[in-house]
Amino acid sequence: MMDILTDEFQPPQNKPKKTVQESEAETTIVMLPSDANPLGNVFGGMILKYVDLLAGLVAKRHAGHANIVTASMDSMTFLKPVYIGNALILKARINYVRRSSMEVEIKIEAEDLNKSQKVHTGTAYVTLVALDEKGKSTEVPQLLLRDEEEKRRFLEGQVRMEMRLKNRKK
Amino acid sequence: MMDILTDEFQPPQNKPKKTVQESEAETTIVMLPSDANPLGNVFGGMILKYVDLLAGLVAKRHAGHANIVTASMDSMTFLKPVYIGNALILKARINYVRRSSMEVEIKIEAEDLNKSQKVHTGTAYVTLVALDEKGKSTEVPQLLLRDEEEKRRFLEGQVRMEMRLKNRKK
Amino acid sequence: MMDILTDEFQPPQNKPKKTVQESEAETTIVMLPSDANPLGNVFGGMILKYVDLLAGLVAKRHAGHANIVTASMDSMTFLKPVYIGNALILKARINYVRRSSMEVEIKIEAEDLNKSQKVHTGTAYVTLVALDEKGKSTEVPQLLLRDEEEKRRFLEGQVRMEMRLKNRKK
Amino acid sequence: MMDILTDEFQPPQNKPKKTVQESEAETTIVMLPSDANPLGNVFGGMILKYVDLLAGLVAKRHAGHANIVTASMDSMTFLKPVYIGNALILKARINYVRRSSMEVEIKIEAEDLNKSQKVHTGTAYVTLVALDEKGKSTEVPQLLLRDEEEKRRFLEGQVRMEMRLKNRKK
Amino acid sequence: MMDILTDEFQPPQNKPKKTVQESEAETTIVMLPSDANPLGNVFGGMILKYVDLLAGLVAKRHAGHANIVTASMDSMTFLKPVYIGNALILKARINYVRRSSMEVEIKIEAEDLNKSQKVHTGTAYVTLVALDEKGKSTEVPQLLLRDEEEKRRFLEGQVRMEMRLKNRKK
Amino acid sequence: MMDILTDEFQPPQNKPKKTVQESEAETTIVMLPSDANPLGNVFGGMILKYVDLLAGLVAKRHAGHANIVTASMDSMTFLKPVYIGNALILKARINYVRRSSMEVEIKIEAEDLNKSQKVHTGTAYVTLVALDEKGKSTEVPQLLLRDEEEKRRFLEGQVRMEMRLKNRKK
Repeated sequence: MMDILTDEFQPPQNKPKKTVQESEAETTIVMLPSDANPLGNVFGGMILKYVDLLAGLVAKRHAGHANIVTASMDSMTFLKPVYIGNALILKARINYVRRSSMEVEIKIEAEDLNKSQKVHTGTAYVTLVALDEKGKSTEVPQLLLRDEEEKRRFLEGQVRMEMRLKNRKK
Repeated sequence: MMDILTDEFQPPQNKPKKTVQESEAETTIVMLPSDANPLGNVFGGMILKYVDLLAGLVAKRHAGHANIVTASMDSMTFLKPVYIGNALILKARINYVRRSSMEVEIKIEAEDLNKSQKVHTGTAYVTLVALDEKGKSTEVPQLLLRDEEEKRRFLEGQVRMEMRLKNRKK
Repeated sequence: MMDILTDEFQPPQNKPKKTVQESEAETTIVMLPSDANPLGNVFGGMILKYVDLLAGLVAKRHAGHANIVTASMDSMTFLKPVYIGNALILKARINYVRRSSMEVEIKIEAEDLNKSQKVHTGTAYVTLVALDEKGKSTEVPQLLLRDEEEKRRFLEGQVRMEMRLKNRKK
Repeated sequence: MMDILTDEFQPPQNKPKKTVQESEAETTIVMLPSDANPLGNVFGGMILKYVDLLAGLVAKRHAGHANIVTASMDSMTFLKPVYIGNALILKARINYVRRSSMEVEIKIEAEDLNKSQKVHTGTAYVTLVALDEKGKSTEVPQLLLRDEEEKRRFLEGQVRMEMRLKNRKK
Repeated sequence: MMDILTDEFQPPQNKPKKTVQESEAETTIVMLPSDANPLGNVFGGMILKYVDLLAGLVAKRHAGHANIVTASMDSMTFLKPVYIGNALILKARINYVRRSSMEVEIKIEAEDLNKSQKVHTGTAYVTLVALDEKGKSTEVPQLLLRDEEEKRRFLEGQVRMEMRLKNRKK
Repeated sequence: MMDILTDEFQPPQNKPKKTVQESEAETTIVMLPSDANPLGNVFGGMILKYVDLLAGLVAKRHAGHANIVTASMDSMTFLKPVYIGNALILKARINYVRRSSMEVEIKIEAEDLNKSQKVHTGTAYVTLVALDEKGKSTEVPQLLLRDEEEKRRFLEGQVRMEMRLKNRKK
């Protein structure tokens, strides 16, 4: 995964491209007693497990054949507790693509099904890398950006990615 | 749950109503080795577990405060095997509402993430009942039908529900 | 699994045969908090998971070397709720065998261990198909029927199987 | 659980009695990839988990209302490995009852479903104690012994129980 | 959890104090097939689940009676993949304590048990908050720092905590 | 595993040796609702599962490349119940090594995190055997004993091992 450090940006040319829509995914899961900590609410690490699984799915959809590994997860604040019986709603989309690495953003909501109320409980940014069968990083399709919002997200993702690389070099 | 048998249809009047959209849900889950049978593919019963969980979530969203139990699941054919590493995609929506019972339809797809191919692997019809704290069946909001497709689905759901009741009386 | 449609009945001749007793199985499992839905009772889909696992075991016992996949599950009514701490008792036996497909019947009981009371909570009919290593349907031993009850069950299984095939062709 | 040490034998008089048959249980479970150790076979501790669950069920059936805790498990030899895809067959019966403690014997078999071969992989003796709501040991029904084999098992269980108590006092 | 923002530093006076050693914890877990992603290695989110569980344990040991919730996890880089069959070794210690919030540092190593080689795969910083029964933040013991290294870690933890608060205010 | 019976003692000569410290391991796990029996406390078999996993890890660390299987577990008394929310602390070390078999001792403590109290709940002795790829028992490094305590433990382990072999021959 050290290869992220040398994962130079390739300007999109005649390369395969995919849209953000082609890989985005949503998942809605009722939190069960088997997801609980002894306090009876969902522990943060369990949420991160679901977040990472969905990020991997989105990256895999974008990258196709390649194997996907998680390279890093940005800092995450748990704004609100999630309770057993809540629905955990995760919406994941790809923001930014470098040569072989991708940033996936996951919005996390918890829905109180008794009161029909949703609260935003956090946003996660996960960086994933595509590997070939030998475990070497491998190129993924470029992002075909279709509106201003997608372009803005792409640039913000690029800024965060460069921050991560700078922090790792330290 | 025997109360389904006497769960007479109430024509929607000045009662609370909800649309189909308010409760529909989607879930996308990567199938992991812990979902596998010894053959290495996902066993039917594991898929039915995810189906029932999502059906319960949709019914709970529609019913609000009440407790939800599964009353029956219609016959289901597994059209194609689902493999470890596939994404299982479940799309659930409420078709029909009686006094306290609801029919939820779940479309099941399996996506081969290497080939970006989705196949329809089955459709499930789950009947769920809303109970109050004492375990008695309790009224749920009526369905606010907004187009011809929703009306058709409602009527088809009503036909299936009456078939189920007839079969149970035997 | 489409091959069920052409799974013609082969009159038992000099082919290998097995009795119903050779493959029947029973399982008794205490329902744990990890089997619970947020209401604190066992959700229907969890029961169906155990049902399908046991049906697969019975079919595998009958079919021997072949791989077993679930082709369909008949409609199932959950007559009574099952609670955490109850014993779930599943009794499974093969009713009917076609060329490569088998019908397994599973009687489901829940036992309240405090009161020593068992209630019948449902009966499931699962159709399973034997596949060879290439995924093609493969012949399984015929059923050696030993009394009137087994013959009656065989004929009833045949009727249900033909209904399923008719429904699938629609 | 220290109360086993003072758990004196009460000769059966006008007390409630139950037969061995009333509490015996059998369970047959296909071993799944989620039961595996990294070698790909079932680890001993997983088998002991299933053994203890079934022993608890048998003791609970015998004791009725009381809470059941495991006091000890006798030494156990794993005679043969159990593989993923095998059926694990556990047969549990109560051998011996003291005032509040019970010895449950569990025979463990593994069945190779491809070859239709069962091997005996071990026998476990589990001692369980009945507790009331305050956590104090509480009397359980006596065993109604119905044949010579049950009497022999009872006496052998008594010998083992006295050995355990002697070992604990050391 | 918003109370972290106003969680002012209280200089240690006559308040209860605990050392770092009193709460530190270590855990070593063999990674099993049930921890695997479809690629056959351990997914990042599963590691984060174990990290969060251990961080919660350390914070609970320090805080005693209070309930513990995870407030945030700092960005984390997965330096190396962890494979099924590896031992995951987590070493957790408290670095810094504010009024009701604590920073726990977890060093993550993966050990290849075939080659007896350990690799550092990442370091996580988790912030946890102590809550009373009403869900309000509640004071925890101060840290009794016993050497220069503990003082340095405390100050570094303080710097990171202030960064987190600044980032959250944005 | 029958080969334990002929697993003769080899006096340590110019063979590879490892110290007890090189393989010892500790694990601390918060007990979650998914570890509970219906009573709400941790069942004995779940503890034995964790014990066996850790014993396997220690034996694997000592044996290096070989595959490890559990041959037997000595009798074990559960001195105290373990509750959900407790930390289960397991400390495992190798006591004795024969040619291919090893005795691992695991001390089990439960810590009430509210009261900061630890209780000793039991000690387990697990015998494990190293196998080569063909499933034959294979030699493991000898133990390099470094103080009187380790020598005493080695001799006690030898006595227990000979007892086990004698009991198995019966």
